Amino acid sequence: MFITFEGVDGCGKTTQLELLRAHLESEFAKTDSSTRIIQTREPGGTTLAERVREIILHSQTPLSPRAELLLFGAARAQHVDELIAPALKRGDWVLCDRFIHSTLAYQGGGLGIDEEFIRAQNTFSTDALMPHLTLLFDVDVRVALERRAARRGEDRIEERGLQFQERVRASFLELAKNEPQRIKIIDANAPAKVVHNRVVRVFEEQDLWPK
Amino acid sequence: MFITFEGVDGCGKTTQLELLRAHLESEFAKTDSSTRIIQTREPGGTTLAERVREIILHSQTPLSPRAELLLFGAARAQHVDELIAPALKRGDWVLCDRFIHSTLAYQGGGLGIDEEFIRAQNTFSTDALMPHLTLLFDVDVRVALERRAARRGEDRIEERGLQFQERVRASFLELAKNEPQRIKIIDANAPAKVVHNRVVRVFEEQDLWPK
Repeated sequence: MFITFEGVDGCGKTTQLELLRAHLESEFAKTDSSTRIIQTREPGGTTLAERVREIILHSQTPLSPRAELLLFGAARAQHVDELIAPALKRGDWVLCDRFIHSTLAYQGGGLGIDEEFIRAQNTFSTDALMPHLTLLFDVDVRVALERRAARRGEDRIEERGLQFQERVRASFLELAKNEPQRIKIIDANAPAKVVHNRVVRVFEEQDLWPK
Repeated sequence: MFITFEGVDGCGKTTQLELLRAHLESEFAKTDSSTRIIQTREPGGTTLAERVREIILHSQTPLSPRAELLLFGAARAQHVDELIAPALKRGDWVLCDRFIHSTLAYQGGGLGIDEEFIRAQNTFSTDALMPHLTLLFDVDVRVALERRAARRGEDRIEERGLQFQERVRASFLELAKNEPQRIKIIDANAPAKVVHNRVVRVFEEQDLWPK
């Protein structure tokens, strides 16, 4: 199983990934102790991809929108080849914080880059690997902003402001409408524990638990 | 004018770029002293692209073929947006050591990556900017190897060996066959001064000199 966690910055997806991971591990311990869970993130997950992440999010060098998109693609190709695809082949479960839908929502919906090329790059960079399930944590962008305010400084993408985040959110919701089988919208305007219960309910409805 | 210099590693293109640059500067001094000549290279030419160059050519981290292709694209997008396009808009001449045809020859012909995606990435990363003239320095790969042996250590791509370089050379020649108006093949199996005279002759035949 390959499960991705998506949503605007501050939607709570990283917290939810960790809660679900703990929950899965305790469920697996009851039924099937040999399945490993790999937790990873984009951009990142490999040495190369973490270097690219640093350039995208924190470097002071000029970065044009097209260069940004291609850097995300490069990091993803390495991530899939070196970590995700081998893990899935071994039978591990992979939980990934952001994946292809973030690229469509941020660089497509947010920055306005041609969606056709983004889709071609997504297919190329993943070697056509798709998540089995995508959890979209949908939240009011003002709620997300308040959550982020409690954290360390903003990165280059978070600095783009509320209107940018609104476009990204709208784009995520549009993607979910077009892929209802894969993408499940979770209302994330609630405390973490409540949102986690919603995630577990989605899992139960999908019948994804190992037998 | 946007002129690119292509060929296998060790073909002599960098030397030829510098000789042509000196020649152009002396010609410009006679006729049109306001035109500037910008000399640049790929991957590189901007802070971001030079960082990416370092990762591609010299890092020890694993780098899959698809990730390599996308990194070249990212470096190129930044190079075009930050340096090449603004220079051409000002009326400067740009001489560039490697450009889109290297990607087709190395990552397509050499590594066997799907040419259709490479062409889509080339168009996207350049914003459809094409060189007015491409000089392809064609050389026997054994001659090129001897020339490289006289230099510092090999980078990650040069280390791929003779058969790889043969595929790259064949791919360059195929590209030239399909774009005879843009790509001019220069026989580079000769001393630098002789090759330079061939380059000047190509220029004279093309009627590219400023009036």
